[in-house]
Amino acid sequence: MAATAADGGFRVLDRNSLIDYIRATPALSSQLGSKLEGLSVKEVGDGNLNYVYIIVSSSGSLVLKQAIPYIRCIGESWPMTKERAYFEALALKEHGRLCPTHVPEVYHFDRPLSLIAMRYLKPPHIILRKGLIAGIVYPLLAEHMSEYMARTLFFTSLLYHSTLEHRREVAEYCGNVELCRLTEQVVFSDPYKVSQYNHWTSPYLDHNAEAVREDDILKLEVAGLKSMFCERTQALVHGDLHTGSVMVTTESTQVIDPEFAFYGPMGFDIGAFLGNLILAFFSQDGHADQGNDRSAYKQWILKTIGDVWNLFQKKFITLWNENKDGNGEAYLKDIYKKPELWNLVQEKYIKDLFHDSLGFGAAKMIRRIVGVAHVEDFESIPDARRRATCERRALEFAKSLLKERRRFDKIEQVVSAIQEIPT
Amino acid sequence: MAATAADGGFRVLDRNSLIDYIRATPALSSQLGSKLEGLSVKEVGDGNLNYVYIIVSSSGSLVLKQAIPYIRCIGESWPMTKERAYFEALALKEHGRLCPTHVPEVYHFDRPLSLIAMRYLKPPHIILRKGLIAGIVYPLLAEHMSEYMARTLFFTSLLYHSTLEHRREVAEYCGNVELCRLTEQVVFSDPYKVSQYNHWTSPYLDHNAEAVREDDILKLEVAGLKSMFCERTQALVHGDLHTGSVMVTTESTQVIDPEFAFYGPMGFDIGAFLGNLILAFFSQDGHADQGNDRSAYKQWILKTIGDVWNLFQKKFITLWNENKDGNGEAYLKDIYKKPELWNLVQEKYIKDLFHDSLGFGAAKMIRRIVGVAHVEDFESIPDARRRATCERRALEFAKSLLKERRRFDKIEQVVSAIQEIPT
Repeated sequence: MAATAADGGFRVLDRNSLIDYIRATPALSSQLGSKLEGLSVKEVGDGNLNYVYIIVSSSGSLVLKQAIPYIRCIGESWPMTKERAYFEALALKEHGRLCPTHVPEVYHFDRPLSLIAMRYLKPPHIILRKGLIAGIVYPLLAEHMSEYMARTLFFTSLLYHSTLEHRREVAEYCGNVELCRLTEQVVFSDPYKVSQYNHWTSPYLDHNAEAVREDDILKLEVAGLKSMFCERTQALVHGDLHTGSVMVTTESTQVIDPEFAFYGPMGFDIGAFLGNLILAFFSQDGHADQGNDRSAYKQWILKTIGDVWNLFQKKFITLWNENKDGNGEAYLKDIYKKPELWNLVQEKYIKDLFHDSLGFGAAKMIRRIVGVAHVEDFESIPDARRRATCERRALEFAKSLLKERRRFDKIEQVVSAIQEIPT
Repeated sequence: MAATAADGGFRVLDRNSLIDYIRATPALSSQLGSKLEGLSVKEVGDGNLNYVYIIVSSSGSLVLKQAIPYIRCIGESWPMTKERAYFEALALKEHGRLCPTHVPEVYHFDRPLSLIAMRYLKPPHIILRKGLIAGIVYPLLAEHMSEYMARTLFFTSLLYHSTLEHRREVAEYCGNVELCRLTEQVVFSDPYKVSQYNHWTSPYLDHNAEAVREDDILKLEVAGLKSMFCERTQALVHGDLHTGSVMVTTESTQVIDPEFAFYGPMGFDIGAFLGNLILAFFSQDGHADQGNDRSAYKQWILKTIGDVWNLFQKKFITLWNENKDGNGEAYLKDIYKKPELWNLVQEKYIKDLFHDSLGFGAAKMIRRIVGVAHVEDFESIPDARRRATCERRALEFAKSLLKERRRFDKIEQVVSAIQEIPT
C-alpha cells in the first residue's frame, strides 16, 4: 500500500513490506542476527485493535505491533487514531524504566508507521486470561502484579513527582484523548443506556441488562467514577489492565498493551486487574467438569485477589516511606513528619485508593457482561444457560460492590462477599 | 533596557518606552485616538506581582499590565515566570467570551513583552477589598459574582465540554505550572510548617500560628485539598479570586488578574471569594468607630455570603438544564434523563462542590492570617491587639470550617456558624 500525503507516510505493513522494513532498520535487524533469510513471520493479532507479528530468526526474535486507524474488531466504521501507538510506546518505555522485570523492552518506535518493535515473550508465555480459563495456578502472579502496580503508580504520582514534572507529563498524555474517550463510552456510558454495541447472553440476562439501565443509585455512582476518570490526574495508569494485557508463565509476569495509558486515577488500573480476577472466579463454574470441579482453583483465585491488594498496599507504602525525602510534593516531610500523622495520612490515602479500586473494578466487570466487549472467561462457556448463570452472579456482585464499596475496609471482606453471592 | 537574546526580546517598559510602544501598535493607538501628545501615564501597580499603567488620552484610555520575571513584592530573590501573562491573557479572553459583562476586554497581547492591554475600569471603580474596608454596600455584588462564577465554571467543565475539548484545554493550561506551584506553597504548605515567609500579628497570635502547625486533623484535611488542587481538572478556574481581584462600583462588577488560571477544582474559586468575604466580615470590628459600629454592614456581608452561594447554585443548575442537550459528556441525557435521577445527580454535584468550596475557602482564610501574604482588611487595622482579636476569630472559624465542612448542608448554616464564633 502506497503512502499518501494525507496520512503522513502511514501504510499498513504486510508480510513482505514488513521484512523489507526490518532489513532497512538496524535497530530491528540487529535483534535478529545477520541471517535474515529464513525469517518466520507469524500474525497473532488476537487483540481488538491492532496487527501483531512475531518475527523469529535463527538467532533472535521480536514482536512488531502496528496500530491502524480504526478498531480492528469492529472495522473502519469505528475510527480510532493510530497515534495510540505513540502513547503505547511512551508508556511501555516509562513503565519499563520503572519496572523492567515486568514490562517488555521496546527496541524501536516508528511514529509515522505507528509501529512498535518490542521483545518477544517466548513460550510458554501465554495470555493470563487463557491461563485462568485453563485453570493454571501462577504462584508468583500476585507478587509480580503488585510490584508492577506499586512501582508504576507510585513513581508517576505526586508522592514522587514534583508538580513541575507532573503537569508536563499530564499535558503530554492529554494527547491520548481518543483512547480515553473510548473507555468513557464503553465502560462508563454504554452499559447504562440502550446502545447498538451492547450485547449479553440473551434471553437469560435480558432482565439483568435492563435492571442495570434502570438502577438510579448505580448510575449515580458510575457518574462519580466517570468524573474521576476524566478529571483526576493521579498517576500514569496503564488504562486497560485486564487479564488479557498480562502474559505469564509460572515464573514470569509481563504487562503489555498500554495504549490506553494516560494520567488518571490509580484505582482504574488496580480495579481493572482485581475486577478481571473476580470475573475469572465467577466463570470457573462454567469450566468445571467431572474431572475437575475447579473448587481448589477458585480458592487460589480468591487468595490471589487478596494477595494482589495486600501486597500492593505494602509495597506502595514501602516505596512512599523510602522516598519521603524525594521530590514528591503532595505530603511535605516538614508538615507530616510526626509518626502518628504520617500513618494517618497513609491510611487515608490507601483507604481512598481501595474504595476507588473497588468502584472501578466493579464498573469494569459490569461492562464485560452487558457492554460491547466481553471476556473469553465467559464467552468460552459453550452452554448459554450455564454461561448466563455465571455472568449473572458476577453482575450481581459487581453492582453491589459498586454501590456498597465504602462499607469495605479490607480485601478479605470483599473476598467473603464474593463467596456469599448465591449460586 | 535593551533586549537580550536570552530573554527573547523581553524588556521592562518604562514611561517613555511605553509611549513609544503605544505609538507603534495600532491596536493600542486606535483606542487612544489620534492625539497622543497629552497622554497621561499613571503607574498603579498595587498588586504583588506586576507593573500596571493607566493610560488616558483626550479621547480614550486603556490599562497596560506587564509581568516581570520575579515576584514584585518580594524581589528578584523569588523568580516567577513572566509567561504568566500569557495565561492571564488567555483566561481573560476565554472568561470574557463566557461572561463579557464582568470581565474587561483585552485589546492586545504581546507575548515576548508579557504585556497585556485591556479596558481601563474608570472611577468610581475601586478594588472590592477597599470598598469592603470602607463599609460600602454593593447591592449587585452577589448577583454579578454568582453570574461570573456560574458561567465561567460551567462552560469550561465537562458538563458543557466534550472530553476532546477538555483535554486540549487542560494540556494548554498545564503550562501555567509555576503559578500553580506558588499557590501550592503559600496556600497549602507554608502555613502548616515553619517557613521564612510566614508572619502573623505577633506576639498575640504566636500560639495560634503554632496551633495551626500542630493540628493533625487540619493538616490531613489540607492534604486532601492540595491533592484536589493538583490533580482535579474540573474547570478553568481564575485561580486567585479574592476580593482584591474584583473591581466594583455600585452598578458594575469586573473580575481582573486571572494570571493563576488553570484547570482545577471549581471550589477553589468559589471558596476564595466566600473566604475573603468572611475575612472582610471578621475585620469589621477593627474598623468600627463611635460613628459606625459596622453592625448593619456586617449583616450585609453575611447576606452577601449567603446570596453568592445560593445564586451561584441556582444559576449553575439553570445553565446545566439549559445545556443538557449539548456536548457535555459527564452526564449523558440518555442515561440520566429520568427527572428524579437528574435531580439526584445535580444535588450530589452541588453538595460536593459546596463542601469543596468551604474547604478551599477556609484554607484561603488561614493562609491570609499566618502565611506570607496578608489582606488589607486586617492589615489596615492599626492597633495590633485589636487586629489580632479580629484575626484570631477568623482563624478559629476557618479551622473549624475546614475540619467540619461536611456537616454543613446549606450556606445559612455556615452564616450562623460565623456569628457563633465568640468575640
